[in-house]
Amino acid sequence: MSVNLPLPQKSDLKPISGFEMGIAQAGIKKANRKDLLVMTLAPGSQVAGVFTLNRFCAAPVQVCREHLAQDGRHGEIRALVVNTGNANAGTGEQGMQHALETCAALAKDLKLNPEQILPFSTGVILEPLPIGKIVSALPKAVAHLGEDNWLDAAEAIMTTDTQPKACSATVQTSAGLVTMTGICKGAGMIHPNMATMLGFIATDAGFAPGLLTALTREVADQSFNAITIDGDTSTNDSFIIMATGKSPVQITSTADANYAIVCDALIAIAKKLAQMIVRDGEGATKLMTIEVIGGKTVEECRLVAKAIAHSPLVKTAFFASDPNLGRILAAIGYAGILDLDVGKVQMWLGDVWVAKDGGRNPSYQEADGQRVMQESEITIKIDLGRGTASQTLWTCDLSHDYVSINADYRS
Amino acid sequence: MSVNLPLPQKSDLKPISGFEMGIAQAGIKKANRKDLLVMTLAPGSQVAGVFTLNRFCAAPVQVCREHLAQDGRHGEIRALVVNTGNANAGTGEQGMQHALETCAALAKDLKLNPEQILPFSTGVILEPLPIGKIVSALPKAVAHLGEDNWLDAAEAIMTTDTQPKACSATVQTSAGLVTMTGICKGAGMIHPNMATMLGFIATDAGFAPGLLTALTREVADQSFNAITIDGDTSTNDSFIIMATGKSPVQITSTADANYAIVCDALIAIAKKLAQMIVRDGEGATKLMTIEVIGGKTVEECRLVAKAIAHSPLVKTAFFASDPNLGRILAAIGYAGILDLDVGKVQMWLGDVWVAKDGGRNPSYQEADGQRVMQESEITIKIDLGRGTASQTLWTCDLSHDYVSINADYRS
Repeated sequence: MSVNLPLPQKSDLKPISGFEMGIAQAGIKKANRKDLLVMTLAPGSQVAGVFTLNRFCAAPVQVCREHLAQDGRHGEIRALVVNTGNANAGTGEQGMQHALETCAALAKDLKLNPEQILPFSTGVILEPLPIGKIVSALPKAVAHLGEDNWLDAAEAIMTTDTQPKACSATVQTSAGLVTMTGICKGAGMIHPNMATMLGFIATDAGFAPGLLTALTREVADQSFNAITIDGDTSTNDSFIIMATGKSPVQITSTADANYAIVCDALIAIAKKLAQMIVRDGEGATKLMTIEVIGGKTVEECRLVAKAIAHSPLVKTAFFASDPNLGRILAAIGYAGILDLDVGKVQMWLGDVWVAKDGGRNPSYQEADGQRVMQESEITIKIDLGRGTASQTLWTCDLSHDYVSINADYRS
Repeated sequence: MSVNLPLPQKSDLKPISGFEMGIAQAGIKKANRKDLLVMTLAPGSQVAGVFTLNRFCAAPVQVCREHLAQDGRHGEIRALVVNTGNANAGTGEQGMQHALETCAALAKDLKLNPEQILPFSTGVILEPLPIGKIVSALPKAVAHLGEDNWLDAAEAIMTTDTQPKACSATVQTSAGLVTMTGICKGAGMIHPNMATMLGFIATDAGFAPGLLTALTREVADQSFNAITIDGDTSTNDSFIIMATGKSPVQITSTADANYAIVCDALIAIAKKLAQMIVRDGEGATKLMTIEVIGGKTVEECRLVAKAIAHSPLVKTAFFASDPNLGRILAAIGYAGILDLDVGKVQMWLGDVWVAKDGGRNPSYQEADGQRVMQESEITIKIDLGRGTASQTLWTCDLSHDYVSINADYRS
């Protein structure tokens, strides 16, 4: 099941000059499925990433952080390798060895230093990575490298995703055209604290040193960090922006007029990708946009939006298309704003004003709530009535299929 | 469905001298069901309570707080009235009027002041209380008052509960025997921040002024505040201890040797009642005890226990009896202990040592995890390896029936 999730067409996914992908079937968890992806960047490219804040972060996340921290010392980052079927998390010292061995094997194939490679894993936690299978399949992925493999790449990183997630955009700047294409995966263990399990965007724009790192964080905050499916922050979340600099557009500073244009375009594509994850949320039947306005701070708006988005009672009511909207008020009430004056709280479901000044709006009719509840994309808007800050999150409902998928995931 | 939930027998529920209950069918949400309960206390009794911290707390909760705050000014608290089928929450000024009208009507029947009455409601939020039905049924409940009606009372406060929850205990002190009987209800919207939706314990012990209030908080913290079903803190949670003082046991201070005896007995009965709520958790098939030890503070142990107890991924894995235990490590990792050294974390499932020093225990066999997972009551034990504090929570799994119950609750 998924909610208005567009199926990407190969012809829609634009190649990025200087960026290649190759995939292989390594048989990591199951035979005959694409489960290994190698991505390479031309010399002179830049890479920046944000990663899970989970303390039990996976070995590959730790290696990524280290390799990015020493970027340039052993040569710039030139390749990425992703396996599905195993998260290489909760695997201790052996897991670190396996992540480093993966980098070393790919470095040999590509004639790079291991430090020029970023490794990524996604799948089951607490089981040893089948390193032998990965190392023997790497040459096949390398042999397959090409600029036109975006759809293959999107398929190779899927786990419980019902379909590949990818999109492209081009944006006109004063210096010329910038192209960007991104892929992502994830459908469960999704929570807005570096939310995506894996997201990769490549662009042919160029950036002055340091610029891409700050920009990546900003993009993540407005996209992948604003979605949640089940409130579970993964051990492997990673979001990467890669810039090959092959287009004529070279951005020198945040003051550069083209910075805002490219940044907005990156945010738009990242938001689209992030929402694809929610649309494909495990068992999702509805996409819910939770818009909290009138807060004193963005943080408190986020607390309220998260309380609503994580409430199993709210999520099951939306699954049932039942406007049992008192459950939303309850979630607002326990979100953690201790001095909240509930008498100033307003709530809308779509265009229907449900709660007025903290109580049921006298003109609210159940039939109006029922009408909005039938839609597959629904906005819940809350005005806290205490300031001007706001925050929007995207989430999905909680259905029988969520339980089935997660009760059966390993079998 | 429920997990080893004992069905209370009328003969097991001991009357408390000076305490009477009467019930009626008011037809609040459905016809022909017990949905109204009146409880009365003999003169000289004491009452203390703890209530939900939800900012959208229900009108009756606000009235309870006020009446307890001015206890004695208009005469002591002498009666309680509980309705199911409607929470009288999110109902604004009209909701407050309805709660006060309920008190006024019962006060007239019982020849008391309205301030001597505590009102309680539980059921759907954001819908007006059918005050007319309640007022006309009150005389029937009053006519039914008697000391032997504990089982009726437990039935009258049920909502999605599959069966009534009640138990009794007696404890020997140096001054004589103390008897206590309690009832509670709740199966969803349960979270450890004053967790029970409704819990009432009556005892014939007597307490010096002020003593019962502190004791009630201590009892709640070790029982109803240590359970969670879905992480949703209700708008109506209330836990009340009533002491008629009719036994020879009169406790004068916390230094009194009998204080500890009675306090321990109250904690034991409250824990038993609280665990009944988890055993009857909506759709529950397993009772999970989450024991976190080795923390620096109780608060951080609680954070970890809550993260595990609220994780839909952990809960669905337990529903499936699937030892997908990496999900527990992930929850520990995002619980919020920023300086957690995962290399010192140990995890046991029942008697099986699963994670050693942050990784998979080399001697762990999947078959051992599988064996424990078949049981209906399972302990997850986590050692954080950084101190001596500990905290235990009780929760249940997340099943298809949870979704069904909450998707269908109002229909």
